[in-house]
Amino acid sequence: MSLTNATPLEVAQAARVGSRQLAVLSTEERNAALVAIHDALAQGKDDVLAANAKDLESANKAAEGGALSTSLVKRLDLGKPGKYDDMLQGILDVKELEDPINKTTAKTLLDDDLILSRITCPIGVLLIIFEARPEVIANISALAIKSGNAAILKGGRESSNSFAAIATIISKALTSTSVPSDCLQLVQTHHVIADLLKLDTYIDLCIPRGGNKLVRFVKDTTTIPVLGHADGICSTYLCADYPADKASKIILDAKTSYPAGCNSTEQLLVDESALSTTLPAVAQALLQKGVSLRCDPNSLSALQATLDPHSATLLQPTGAEDFDTEFLDYILAIKTVPNVSAAIEHINTHSSHHTDAILTLSSSIAQQFLSAIDSSSVYWNTSTRMADGQRYGFGTEVGISTNKIHSRGPVGLEGLTIYKWVIIGDAQVSAEYGAGGKAWKHKVIPDEGVAKNDEERELLRQYRAGKI
Amino acid sequence: MSLTNATPLEVAQAARVGSRQLAVLSTEERNAALVAIHDALAQGKDDVLAANAKDLESANKAAEGGALSTSLVKRLDLGKPGKYDDMLQGILDVKELEDPINKTTAKTLLDDDLILSRITCPIGVLLIIFEARPEVIANISALAIKSGNAAILKGGRESSNSFAAIATIISKALTSTSVPSDCLQLVQTHHVIADLLKLDTYIDLCIPRGGNKLVRFVKDTTTIPVLGHADGICSTYLCADYPADKASKIILDAKTSYPAGCNSTEQLLVDESALSTTLPAVAQALLQKGVSLRCDPNSLSALQATLDPHSATLLQPTGAEDFDTEFLDYILAIKTVPNVSAAIEHINTHSSHHTDAILTLSSSIAQQFLSAIDSSSVYWNTSTRMADGQRYGFGTEVGISTNKIHSRGPVGLEGLTIYKWVIIGDAQVSAEYGAGGKAWKHKVIPDEGVAKNDEERELLRQYRAGKI
Repeated sequence: MSLTNATPLEVAQAARVGSRQLAVLSTEERNAALVAIHDALAQGKDDVLAANAKDLESANKAAEGGALSTSLVKRLDLGKPGKYDDMLQGILDVKELEDPINKTTAKTLLDDDLILSRITCPIGVLLIIFEARPEVIANISALAIKSGNAAILKGGRESSNSFAAIATIISKALTSTSVPSDCLQLVQTHHVIADLLKLDTYIDLCIPRGGNKLVRFVKDTTTIPVLGHADGICSTYLCADYPADKASKIILDAKTSYPAGCNSTEQLLVDESALSTTLPAVAQALLQKGVSLRCDPNSLSALQATLDPHSATLLQPTGAEDFDTEFLDYILAIKTVPNVSAAIEHINTHSSHHTDAILTLSSSIAQQFLSAIDSSSVYWNTSTRMADGQRYGFGTEVGISTNKIHSRGPVGLEGLTIYKWVIIGDAQVSAEYGAGGKAWKHKVIPDEGVAKNDEERELLRQYRAGKI
Repeated sequence: MSLTNATPLEVAQAARVGSRQLAVLSTEERNAALVAIHDALAQGKDDVLAANAKDLESANKAAEGGALSTSLVKRLDLGKPGKYDDMLQGILDVKELEDPINKTTAKTLLDDDLILSRITCPIGVLLIIFEARPEVIANISALAIKSGNAAILKGGRESSNSFAAIATIISKALTSTSVPSDCLQLVQTHHVIADLLKLDTYIDLCIPRGGNKLVRFVKDTTTIPVLGHADGICSTYLCADYPADKASKIILDAKTSYPAGCNSTEQLLVDESALSTTLPAVAQALLQKGVSLRCDPNSLSALQATLDPHSATLLQPTGAEDFDTEFLDYILAIKTVPNVSAAIEHINTHSSHHTDAILTLSSSIAQQFLSAIDSSSVYWNTSTRMADGQRYGFGTEVGISTNKIHSRGPVGLEGLTIYKWVIIGDAQVSAEYGAGGKAWKHKVIPDEGVAKNDEERELLRQYRAGKI
């Protein structure tokens, strides 16, 4: 792991060379490196916390001067009870996940003794740019090594001492393992990012983990593929037939369980016919939790007519930007819609294509919504806050992607892999097949135990017996 | 399908709106549109060929003046026997393929009555830029509609009359179907490409189909994801243990069956110890087929010592660029390597990561090669020319991708799809789970018929019985 003054090109080239060696290591070798990192960070805790204390001191000074937010200072602190141990445990958790590479995900008999396989493999070199939280370096390092990818890591300047301490320990730990230490490259200086983002020959995928501004800058600057999401403008659409108690429960969770989360609901769409029936109870529950409601004219007048006078005074009218804003706060914009088609049209236009939900008892309305909404996650009768790799059962989360290719929604380890096509033959050549020549067999060879019918079972039997 | 003077923004917005409607059509509705296009193009054959004749006349004039190559003129000609009918049949072939969208590819029981599904869906709006061959418009239109994607199509200026004729017919045919005609947008003027490549809000994926220059221009210009390959610098590595007859057969196919193909072998790597044993027979066979051999010093002197005097005079020394050049011609560069590690190092450095092959009888050497070569297709004992969607059994080919994300190698219809995550619940919310709350069940619900063990079979049974 480099902390030197290497040029961006040297950093990227070293990572590329390292990635080739890492890609062919066994599961055991990669897992052993994770254990080594874990153990070294456990032993080096005092050094890391001492470095972290320096970052905190500078950050606190900056916060007093108003240059940094206090929430950012809190995120910097590795000394909070349990935080360091959580970081260590996270490394072991990643080690325990199923190895995502060298898995055969498709197999076709092209002809006798000519078999095509699709085998998962690492992507290569990742560029990961993240803000503030210093423990991310351990998490990302573990994910990269587990999936056989080299990674170039650039952290926020506020945690530079913590990063340097952790990086030094990881780097030293790797020297006793099969993983080349060049596979993890830490870059400290901010100005190198622009140069790194140009190196699409050496860097295969860029993952910005941070706010809207960072992600937009990266997306607009590079021709390297970018995995991530800039905004999380999520909507919940409340239909008139849905019970008020369940609606309140879901919408409260979606808005207030973690308003700073990208999967929090920012907009509530309400059926016209629910304005005076279900909406008042939902609005009352939100107001009690301290949520500011920014209402369009129809919902505003309906609520003013139904809520008690005190609550009614808390209501606000919507502004011009409210349906294109990620509030990340106790604020909810409310819009009235005549029907599901209008809700779909509004969401497909204003949503950031992250996560959107419908609340209804009607299966046909729900299916229309689930089919037509062009977002990475689409829910029926649950909270948009469900969008999360841990909740989806991935064991870990690389991030959430609103991309339309590769990996969409919460991204697990699988999102850090691609595949190669492997053919094993016996001197068959392309010109033998096609018009006037041999015919392709093109038979799917099923996986162990998943043959779907007699033909596939027979094929698998023959394949195992070495007959095809 | 627009042939008007709409601005690039209007074109992209119209395609986006059309894509939303197309995405929710049934398999039958999309297939019916393909039949309608087929029938209309069959009826309109005379009009298309008349327009094509105009393109051919201009192209022939340009060819006489030296401004166009005669091979390009040949590719323009839709009147060649069988070509128009092949184009028509291609549309019906695409119709017969399995529907790639609305397939459930994963299903997880998150908790009772809370099920997560991964469902394939269209990507959205494709921008497809292609050169010369006018029949591509019919092929691409069929692929786009089949996969539920809108497409903006930009063809080469040489076939503009043919494009306009085909586009007019397709556009008219779509008016009688459920597919909005805005889903296929034809742009004719070259200068709009630069503007379209900026519209990453409306265009989800760009597929350039053409030469190296076009693909590089597109990749360097846009922040829209690009699917394709700029170069096809493929290598074959001949080990000393591989029989000369099989080696000659494979290498002849790889070099001479279609030298202009991106999957043709451009470089032959040879084990030092094969220089005087296997290589001479292979070289002799290549020279007889008219292949120019550009030999590194070791292979040159070995062949000069073993070939007959006439053949020896045909040999050429390698130039500085020969191992980084896509010849697309009857030219092969030959390099001597001491062992498989050197072959891997050379290929990973000089290959375009398209397709590379090893010829050996050694399983362990082959596995080392298959594992370490970082290319989209890697072969053992067969020809690099196998890299093709039809040969892989995809039924059709969108192109070949050397990308490291999304779709790699020959890309079938599946490469034009992504997925969305759908959760169906009953008012469960995120805050109920985790520390101190309910535990996630996270049980994989297997597909129909592919339960792998008793636990999965029982889960499937319960799921079908409506018990979970």
